[in-house]
Amino acid sequence: LQISTAQRLSEEPIAEIRELVYRASIDRMDDAGFAAMSAMNQAHLVMLVECGVLSPEAGASLARAMGQMQAEGRAGLPTDSTIEDPYFAYEARLAELVGGEIAGQLHAGRSRNDIGATLDQMAARGCCLAILAALEPLRATVLDMAARHTATIMPGHTHLQPAQPITFGFYLASIAAALQRDADRLLGAFVHIDACSLGSAAMAGTSFPIDRERTAALLGFAAVAEPCLDAVASRDFATSLLFAATQLAVTWNRVVQDLHVFFSHEFSAISLPDRVAGTSSIMPQKKNPIALEFLRAEAARAIGGLTSVLCAIKSTNFSIALDAQREGLIDLWAVLQRMPGNLRLFTRILESVTLQEALLLERCRTNFATATDLADGLVRRCGIAFRDAHHIVGGVVRLAIDQGLSADAVDAAMVERVAEPLLGRRLGVDDVFVRACLDPVRAVEGRKTQGGTSRAEVERQIGKARAALRAHAAEAAALQARVDDAADLLARRVRDVAGGVV
Amino acid sequence: LQISTAQRLSEEPIAEIRELVYRASIDRMDDAGFAAMSAMNQAHLVMLVECGVLSPEAGASLARAMGQMQAEGRAGLPTDSTIEDPYFAYEARLAELVGGEIAGQLHAGRSRNDIGATLDQMAARGCCLAILAALEPLRATVLDMAARHTATIMPGHTHLQPAQPITFGFYLASIAAALQRDADRLLGAFVHIDACSLGSAAMAGTSFPIDRERTAALLGFAAVAEPCLDAVASRDFATSLLFAATQLAVTWNRVVQDLHVFFSHEFSAISLPDRVAGTSSIMPQKKNPIALEFLRAEAARAIGGLTSVLCAIKSTNFSIALDAQREGLIDLWAVLQRMPGNLRLFTRILESVTLQEALLLERCRTNFATATDLADGLVRRCGIAFRDAHHIVGGVVRLAIDQGLSADAVDAAMVERVAEPLLGRRLGVDDVFVRACLDPVRAVEGRKTQGGTSRAEVERQIGKARAALRAHAAEAAALQARVDDAADLLARRVRDVAGGVV
Amino acid sequence: LQISTAQRLSEEPIAEIRELVYRASIDRMDDAGFAAMSAMNQAHLVMLVECGVLSPEAGASLARAMGQMQAEGRAGLPTDSTIEDPYFAYEARLAELVGGEIAGQLHAGRSRNDIGATLDQMAARGCCLAILAALEPLRATVLDMAARHTATIMPGHTHLQPAQPITFGFYLASIAAALQRDADRLLGAFVHIDACSLGSAAMAGTSFPIDRERTAALLGFAAVAEPCLDAVASRDFATSLLFAATQLAVTWNRVVQDLHVFFSHEFSAISLPDRVAGTSSIMPQKKNPIALEFLRAEAARAIGGLTSVLCAIKSTNFSIALDAQREGLIDLWAVLQRMPGNLRLFTRILESVTLQEALLLERCRTNFATATDLADGLVRRCGIAFRDAHHIVGGVVRLAIDQGLSADAVDAAMVERVAEPLLGRRLGVDDVFVRACLDPVRAVEGRKTQGGTSRAEVERQIGKARAALRAHAAEAAALQARVDDAADLLARRVRDVAGGVV
Amino acid sequence: LQISTAQRLSEEPIAEIRELVYRASIDRMDDAGFAAMSAMNQAHLVMLVECGVLSPEAGASLARAMGQMQAEGRAGLPTDSTIEDPYFAYEARLAELVGGEIAGQLHAGRSRNDIGATLDQMAARGCCLAILAALEPLRATVLDMAARHTATIMPGHTHLQPAQPITFGFYLASIAAALQRDADRLLGAFVHIDACSLGSAAMAGTSFPIDRERTAALLGFAAVAEPCLDAVASRDFATSLLFAATQLAVTWNRVVQDLHVFFSHEFSAISLPDRVAGTSSIMPQKKNPIALEFLRAEAARAIGGLTSVLCAIKSTNFSIALDAQREGLIDLWAVLQRMPGNLRLFTRILESVTLQEALLLERCRTNFATATDLADGLVRRCGIAFRDAHHIVGGVVRLAIDQGLSADAVDAAMVERVAEPLLGRRLGVDDVFVRACLDPVRAVEGRKTQGGTSRAEVERQIGKARAALRAHAAEAAALQARVDDAADLLARRVRDVAGGVV
Repeated sequence: LQISTAQRLSEEPIAEIRELVYRASIDRMDDAGFAAMSAMNQAHLVMLVECGVLSPEAGASLARAMGQMQAEGRAGLPTDSTIEDPYFAYEARLAELVGGEIAGQLHAGRSRNDIGATLDQMAARGCCLAILAALEPLRATVLDMAARHTATIMPGHTHLQPAQPITFGFYLASIAAALQRDADRLLGAFVHIDACSLGSAAMAGTSFPIDRERTAALLGFAAVAEPCLDAVASRDFATSLLFAATQLAVTWNRVVQDLHVFFSHEFSAISLPDRVAGTSSIMPQKKNPIALEFLRAEAARAIGGLTSVLCAIKSTNFSIALDAQREGLIDLWAVLQRMPGNLRLFTRILESVTLQEALLLERCRTNFATATDLADGLVRRCGIAFRDAHHIVGGVVRLAIDQGLSADAVDAAMVERVAEPLLGRRLGVDDVFVRACLDPVRAVEGRKTQGGTSRAEVERQIGKARAALRAHAAEAAALQARVDDAADLLARRVRDVAGGVV
Repeated sequence: LQISTAQRLSEEPIAEIRELVYRASIDRMDDAGFAAMSAMNQAHLVMLVECGVLSPEAGASLARAMGQMQAEGRAGLPTDSTIEDPYFAYEARLAELVGGEIAGQLHAGRSRNDIGATLDQMAARGCCLAILAALEPLRATVLDMAARHTATIMPGHTHLQPAQPITFGFYLASIAAALQRDADRLLGAFVHIDACSLGSAAMAGTSFPIDRERTAALLGFAAVAEPCLDAVASRDFATSLLFAATQLAVTWNRVVQDLHVFFSHEFSAISLPDRVAGTSSIMPQKKNPIALEFLRAEAARAIGGLTSVLCAIKSTNFSIALDAQREGLIDLWAVLQRMPGNLRLFTRILESVTLQEALLLERCRTNFATATDLADGLVRRCGIAFRDAHHIVGGVVRLAIDQGLSADAVDAAMVERVAEPLLGRRLGVDDVFVRACLDPVRAVEGRKTQGGTSRAEVERQIGKARAALRAHAAEAAALQARVDDAADLLARRVRDVAGGVV
Repeated sequence: LQISTAQRLSEEPIAEIRELVYRASIDRMDDAGFAAMSAMNQAHLVMLVECGVLSPEAGASLARAMGQMQAEGRAGLPTDSTIEDPYFAYEARLAELVGGEIAGQLHAGRSRNDIGATLDQMAARGCCLAILAALEPLRATVLDMAARHTATIMPGHTHLQPAQPITFGFYLASIAAALQRDADRLLGAFVHIDACSLGSAAMAGTSFPIDRERTAALLGFAAVAEPCLDAVASRDFATSLLFAATQLAVTWNRVVQDLHVFFSHEFSAISLPDRVAGTSSIMPQKKNPIALEFLRAEAARAIGGLTSVLCAIKSTNFSIALDAQREGLIDLWAVLQRMPGNLRLFTRILESVTLQEALLLERCRTNFATATDLADGLVRRCGIAFRDAHHIVGGVVRLAIDQGLSADAVDAAMVERVAEPLLGRRLGVDDVFVRACLDPVRAVEGRKTQGGTSRAEVERQIGKARAALRAHAAEAAALQARVDDAADLLARRVRDVAGGVV
Repeated sequence: LQISTAQRLSEEPIAEIRELVYRASIDRMDDAGFAAMSAMNQAHLVMLVECGVLSPEAGASLARAMGQMQAEGRAGLPTDSTIEDPYFAYEARLAELVGGEIAGQLHAGRSRNDIGATLDQMAARGCCLAILAALEPLRATVLDMAARHTATIMPGHTHLQPAQPITFGFYLASIAAALQRDADRLLGAFVHIDACSLGSAAMAGTSFPIDRERTAALLGFAAVAEPCLDAVASRDFATSLLFAATQLAVTWNRVVQDLHVFFSHEFSAISLPDRVAGTSSIMPQKKNPIALEFLRAEAARAIGGLTSVLCAIKSTNFSIALDAQREGLIDLWAVLQRMPGNLRLFTRILESVTLQEALLLERCRTNFATATDLADGLVRRCGIAFRDAHHIVGGVVRLAIDQGLSADAVDAAMVERVAEPLLGRRLGVDDVFVRACLDPVRAVEGRKTQGGTSRAEVERQIGKARAALRAHAAEAAALQARVDDAADLLARRVRDVAGGVV
């Protein structure tokens, strides 16, 4: 009795199907995938024995064979090219070990549809926790650097033009806030991952008296996915995770884009150590920020992966189809699995950044980035409307640029010269006042309102972000602990079922 | 003193910029956009007066002028083509009414960057609540229909092939579960929308002693967005909402795809009333499910919009740029604003569906959809392995098809004929047993495990889904109430500031 | 007898369909769409009369009524909300003018399916020619600027790091080459647009003895689309055009990205006049390159539109459906119609760019961009391997940077100091040689091989590009002339059919 | 002297860069990639010797070493994890064989930038020809099947509703026409692939007196890519190919979608042999069209890949960056390389399709698909307007459906009963006329106009398509022959340079 080819069909599949669909699906299973396959089968076995669907004897045979298969790993699976997929390969090996009659009892109350959903849930769970685990040190790094740089002045840009002086600490605290939302979304995505489809069978449930709560618990899930059609047909738990990861990639891409420009010879705003740079085969002077460009490519690939998956699933019927589940998700898994490595690379680069502090402070003194502060100062000192002050200072900047002067050469006379025709009167400001308004250090420190740049305010922001990071880390750790505890429980129960032999 | 053209620049913008960028941005503002602009300005005004940045007199003038502008609506705004955007148009009209000196005081402590973020937050909030409001009756409709159809037998398909008999109620309960997660995600997206950026100014905060908590409260937000750079640079609150909406569209697309196929002449599984169908200009017999195709197009457009927005934002610096915020989000707003209408259309169609019950029950009797139940029955009755039972029944199906028989013609003799050579013995089943196994009504009722198809189990699923719907509705209502209460508070405070005149 | 509601259906469509599908489809028709609708109907009319399917009398009535409708424009169409689409609105107005019996004869041999395809072909043709017409002056501008700047030295970058000195003329000639391929693709896309579907009827052709070659000729098409199912079902002529336009947008985005960075205060590589810049509402010093960011957003929207359309069409059956044709293409038309304006805006900005020539030449002298030329020089002068020379110069650059020296301070001694330990011997070069190698002007002029930077070579490139531009312009002009000639012919024939009255 | 680590940098790259960027780039090189790398290096070598840049002796050493490396294959490359990419690995192995001094001379006049572009051009060329080679038998299969089925009646659908009777031959001829345009686009994309970038060096060309025409010819290219910046920076030759391939996937997806629905139990319009179907692990009756779903997933992945690549390239500077070229194209290559296999799979499935001819003919007799033909008949016989005829027949259909009658029960009396109140008179038709109009065989044969369904017309369409296929095949063969001839020439010249030893 040959396992895994039903009697229904009378021909072997054509070579193209065997190669592109069957073989490829087995080749895609990595060690983590095999481990999940093992655990999923073991959990089903334990439950079947506990529910009396499987006899203790059959259960013991299967548990021991599964133990042997765990030891063999992926390499132990048969390689017959007519085997449709990893589950059938697993079942075929089981049949070699315990005979078809016993192996064939394991499949009661389930199908490859709920198996596929369960394995996807386990994979998504693993990816989610791995991404969170890589995101945590990134956020810690950003906040540590921020804390060291709450007084490091640099130009803040809008439209890539100097806007206002800020601090590097403030810049990093802003990045940390964005990453915090990214982590929020990843944890939010976990909730829908956390319901187990095993026991949904083909789509309609089963008449075997199985206990789905039990398999869910043995596999570390918080809940049971239901109704069964939804449980096998839906993969929004995975697309939501992919979106959360893609949005995280968009966040990092924007920071990377900043670093790429800041690192240009012309900006020279930051330096990077040689260990994160690439060379040129022809240009001897080159030190290229290739890792940053790599991370930009990865962000684009995440967007492409999201498009691929949504486009595949969109047009399927609300049920099972290769493009609604398996093949339609290939790009999703590839993107998710690259995420932790990409986050580590990003962390490595970010922590290696050195700011050219003196140069950047000097730029803030000369590049008119404190023009707004002069306008604000005129409002407060002279009681004029903000819009008037804005116009006056705009005129002063134009005047200075036309004369080839930089911001540190602006004086009270220039302000009056512009203001008088506009207002019909002199403002009565002096050079000390004008110079104070235009001082970037003072300007940065003067913005004390919530979310502002002053040292104390940024320190408060960092403190708040650290608390959020700790809370996230605790939440992720608790999820991971639940998964680990379930794995221990499962191992113990498998040993029991095996008669203590495994 | 001309408002809204800074002295910094000495030339008028070219026609292409005026037309494609400036004019277009103003044309995009609809009535809801104008109302949000009004409220945002009023909240800033009230706060400035309360904080003493603005004198009571100036505040009163501005409050009264804003009241007049509310009455005038969008039509009252100036149409000068050199005006850069809606905010400058608003400020220009204000200056016409109260003079530039007073109008110019309103902008203290903010910029168009935080204004843009705040208006986007208000727009996203409105979209999110509108989508939730349209999703609620859809879910209620699905659950009501499900409750009426817990005993209506139909074929369940996988790979668009008959798989197992289910009920229409079970099918709809599965849809409801998917829609419940969609609602979860929309409510999850709300959290990040719910922090107000107003007062972040250009990117670095402000030195004016403003109260950002107060403006946030006056506009009905739960929190203040910070640090200010993140508050003006980030739009992930909007992309997350777009993803949630897009995933919802993917859900509806799959159901629509089912209905489209079910409505085909060949399936004739459902009928639709004439009022949701289209005609042909040439083929007199036609009754076309065009509205279903419209909804499929809309789902594709949502995916395209998501791609557009992620692609635009991805490559920007972590700061302000037209493609990181304004122009980069155009497709996002278009998709979100079409969502409620699409959901209403979908609800209308769904509630108009009639199942061809007799035909579908007959199909379940003949199309071998209960083959699994026969296999399960053999396992239980004869104590053979599931895989053996699966092979035997597969052989029986092949035998029947080769003989041109449908499932209701299968008898015990056919089962024995296939089983004997395979097992080396007869199974000893009779026709009564075989017919009972193959009865779709019995099969559906037999799947009583969690998530299964039996009537009581589906009723339990529906009950649970209804509780979730009530909870979601209460949550959305509370959010809407907070927004409405804030609008009332704001109106009262504006009246106070205006000296009771507005 | 009411036109445009078939007897087949007994209910009016629901409000959601009338509003979202019917009304919206009519609202989307602009003046160009109405003109195409008129021409298409006139061409069909003329052909029907010529083929004897329509009597001369009926033909004359219809021709005169169509003339009146042309004069009325879109505004003349009925606004009954139950009218399904623009064609039915047209036919309804026709029936008002000539009575239902005569109006009803016009539809022989066609359906809305081939009408829709034909109108899409006319729209795509118009978009293609309009984009080509806007692309031509852009390319001419780029080449004119290139010709003026064949000796204007600037740093060429790779990885946004100084790579080698080039000229602005060379940079622009490279852009021109990319735009030339974009034009190639647009013209290539025209070929598949240029076959007319009219007369394909619903999908299967017609039994009326119509002459499809004739309608195609009257509408200015080169060929007839066939078989009829393909002719009504396929829109790859439009998606190909959209891809060509999107790739063009990607090209412009990369140039825009260069300009955006070059315009930064830190690069100061180019200046832009005030007329293409935006201001800030808060920062008085600001002059923002918003138009560049607008063009980046437009490129992202093109990619999103392409995704939308491919995603919509992908999953449809190979036939007619709203998402395979009409609603599925909405985003496509929006992108295509914005293209000419975007190209004009890009042209305006590009032609306004001024290079900071002195600064850039100075940068090339100091930023080690001629390191490769020194390595090449060492290969030629000293007979060492390129890789050795590359290593020596790399070491020299490191030495200089460690000592805080820029490239113009490198001398022969430094070269020998690095080379000797590496090669075990001195190279025997002197300062004159080293300085000559490091001279950017000499370096640029020294690259004379095909595609290189020397003045003569770039002039040759520009000459070749100008010839290609002339050829493309002639090709586009010929296509436009064919369309225009057909319009004249059609107008004459309509007049004839009308008895000279129109 | 260590090859491939410049002296410029003083640190080893970090582990994340070595693993994710360097190692991964080398792992991605397959045998075809190594062969292209070999050929590219050999062509450069031959040219350098011919131009006198390299001495005959050095040339001979290198040619022999390259011969050895060809024999070793990829496995011969060093695996040092600090090697940046495949080219550096190649050069490092070369240095092991001939010493660094000679190996280091090979790189004169080029860089990894033009090498990368050239390898991409060779890869794109190979993919393009491979896709064309797989598309040719698909088109031949479609046309052969079409020729066998010009009289096989089936319902044509629009909106998945029966529209008009067609033949399977006509359906297939329509598919063939769409595939013909897909082939056109692939060949059109070849033109821009067919220009060689080698010798463009980093971006600016080179001062070495190389002969770029010669390397282009030795590698089988039609032209030299220029200017050099464009030659290294642009990959639109690859994105255009990807679009052509993606559009082809969209074409196949639509046909696959038809087959998927046609194969449903409810349609039973086609049968597929067991060898292209999959089973179920639980449902014994199952025969699932999984290969069709696989092809739909692949189409979605192509769209995702296109999005990924355009999104990556869009935001890069117009020059070299990892995301503009190498990493940004990873998804592109993956999609292109899967295309030929997918096309073969599609061909296998398509050729295995059997139509249920009797059933489909019967459906055409009963499903009102000839209603249009009755309307056309009334126009011709009774001289009424098409719109009137359309309404009458629409009413007849409604009447029949209300009475539970199918189309073959419609008689003259029913027609008169509907017509009389509408027209105020009887039409005077008889049953023979009505039955003839409603006969699907006659209807199909009656559509003889261009693109129609009549047997002779479809045979003409097939003949025309076959001529186009032959022309395309000849064109592709000529391109392949040029490439092959160049490979022969290159091998001969390498042998010459090696002194005949290789």
